[in-house]
Amino acid sequence: MINLTSIRYINTIVKTDSVKSLFYKEYGEPADVLHVTTQPINQPKNNEVSVKWLLAPVNPADINTIQGKYPSKPPLPAIPGNEGVGEVIAIGSNVKHLSIGDRVIPNGTNLGTWRTYANYTSEELMKVPKEIGTIEASMLNVNPCTAYRMLKDFVELKPGDTIIQNGGNSAVGQMVIQLCKVWNYKSVSVVRDRPNIQELKNHLSSLGADEILTENEIRKTQIFKSKKLPSPKLALNCICGQNALEISRHLAHGGIMITYGGMSREPLTVPISALIFKDITFKGFWMTAWTKKNMDSIERQNMFCELGALFKNKKLKAPLHKLVPFHQYQEAVINALHTDGRTGVKYILDMTKP
Amino acid sequence: MINLTSIRYINTIVKTDSVKSLFYKEYGEPADVLHVTTQPINQPKNNEVSVKWLLAPVNPADINTIQGKYPSKPPLPAIPGNEGVGEVIAIGSNVKHLSIGDRVIPNGTNLGTWRTYANYTSEELMKVPKEIGTIEASMLNVNPCTAYRMLKDFVELKPGDTIIQNGGNSAVGQMVIQLCKVWNYKSVSVVRDRPNIQELKNHLSSLGADEILTENEIRKTQIFKSKKLPSPKLALNCICGQNALEISRHLAHGGIMITYGGMSREPLTVPISALIFKDITFKGFWMTAWTKKNMDSIERQNMFCELGALFKNKKLKAPLHKLVPFHQYQEAVINALHTDGRTGVKYILDMTKP
Repeated sequence: MINLTSIRYINTIVKTDSVKSLFYKEYGEPADVLHVTTQPINQPKNNEVSVKWLLAPVNPADINTIQGKYPSKPPLPAIPGNEGVGEVIAIGSNVKHLSIGDRVIPNGTNLGTWRTYANYTSEELMKVPKEIGTIEASMLNVNPCTAYRMLKDFVELKPGDTIIQNGGNSAVGQMVIQLCKVWNYKSVSVVRDRPNIQELKNHLSSLGADEILTENEIRKTQIFKSKKLPSPKLALNCICGQNALEISRHLAHGGIMITYGGMSREPLTVPISALIFKDITFKGFWMTAWTKKNMDSIERQNMFCELGALFKNKKLKAPLHKLVPFHQYQEAVINALHTDGRTGVKYILDMTKP
Repeated sequence: MINLTSIRYINTIVKTDSVKSLFYKEYGEPADVLHVTTQPINQPKNNEVSVKWLLAPVNPADINTIQGKYPSKPPLPAIPGNEGVGEVIAIGSNVKHLSIGDRVIPNGTNLGTWRTYANYTSEELMKVPKEIGTIEASMLNVNPCTAYRMLKDFVELKPGDTIIQNGGNSAVGQMVIQLCKVWNYKSVSVVRDRPNIQELKNHLSSLGADEILTENEIRKTQIFKSKKLPSPKLALNCICGQNALEISRHLAHGGIMITYGGMSREPLTVPISALIFKDITFKGFWMTAWTKKNMDSIERQNMFCELGALFKNKKLKAPLHKLVPFHQYQEAVINALHTDGRTGVKYILDMTKP
């Protein structure tokens, strides 16, 4: 039970003193192994704050974690969720850098955001300006950062340079398109063909995409000749398989392909000549590992500062998404694995509707 | 016809004033498209020297070039051969840095070493000390340099670190084993199984190999646990296909695989998890490109200096080889594609038996 003498404020939304959490005791399909539990809210310790979680995205990596297929395995039983946005509703007496009413996001992984409330040390949280919308804030940690780092850390890009990516309508893909627009890089995005392809192309164009091609179109495209587009120095790959192979063929000599996902579930196939004669490099990127390694780095501070400003100024917009009331979590976890690339819609749990 | 007034010396081996050359007018199988031509020796111009080629290795890349399958395509008709050792038998009046009697190797590619004599500018040649045996000198340009650069340029290795390679008995593979021995790196070499496997293992052990495993053995090996061998930071791959996949599994987190050949003619298959979660990098290496880019560099000078000293001190030995009289070139070109990895024997054309 919360001790009202130790806290200075409770958000008006708080109508109950219980916590609803999703949790799992064994790995498996989320729809099977996830259950809702209700517990009383604990008073925050002296170095802790109480967070009322507002929104929490459901990422493919969350699903893979629950399935036990992800390398980052929390001890069981576990509460899922790596991303989210919450509000500080109570603070312990020793907490200095956070105040009641602050909007916070996780500063690390496996904080278990798929619940209505929880207590954390202040180091586990990062304050975000309120000018960033709640939806944008809820997904600040993973996708925008992934796009940002992949565009910054592997090749020195100059305005006018080209990048190419598959999964152009994935949550990361849409961030890549927008960041390229901001930094004046040309982006070539490959998407899967679908009945409403023109609608999708229009949407990505509105975000600032320069070229959008289907998997079929990229195979025979002449845009690098006919439109005098410089060959890309950087390819971003979240699909692998044949799709990635087609993408890699367009890379400039000495270019690099960064793999950050494998939605096709096929390995990456690399022609010998691409390695030896075209001097193409193939590397991977994992945001979780980057964050762990750079937790307190200037680079990380600068990144959040820059991304925050871009969200505030509406230069970056959240990808297509659907809010799902917390108690209807089944819809989100069943569909989340298909969000990247297929539907292009990201599912977000809405804890204000517990 | 050679003008005797302009030259100061003719090697005593010179019994004739004609040049025998192998040449091809069209791409195809070397046994079909190669022909012998005989021409008079031309007098060297003022800035040229006349070289009597003594030995010239037949590399798989030479065969691929003749087949038209290699990216480095000399204009046709062409005289094949990128490596060799020769003796300066005449010098033009303006040549300063070479003398008659000097032993030379090509300083660049496509010099056409598969002939008995030719004239070159002094910049096209590099002098090598006579203490280096002719066989070793004839193959100094490609294989030892390839092994040297791959061990130097991609990972900072410390004594005690492990590297892993396939094609352990290839010409490059044997150089890798010996350089690892010199520099105190542990080498794990994978070779194809064969009837005389113990003989091969003994040979590679005698060169300083730490561990030699067949493709079958590498799949289930526990040497990295049982022998407390550090996981390799560097893998060298000239095979690709399933073989390279097995090798890559043993790499340490953050390790790198360098591909410099693809004897299996299969592409490289890269599991997604190796890229994203193990942070493995896949790159290629092409000695030809390195040489072009670093022709006059200190790094190249230092490399030849160091390799030359190692050959002189017998710390490096030439790989298993077979000298083939020049007129029996058919035997060499038919077997050369199989030298890497299969027979482990390198064919060398002997121009002293034209």
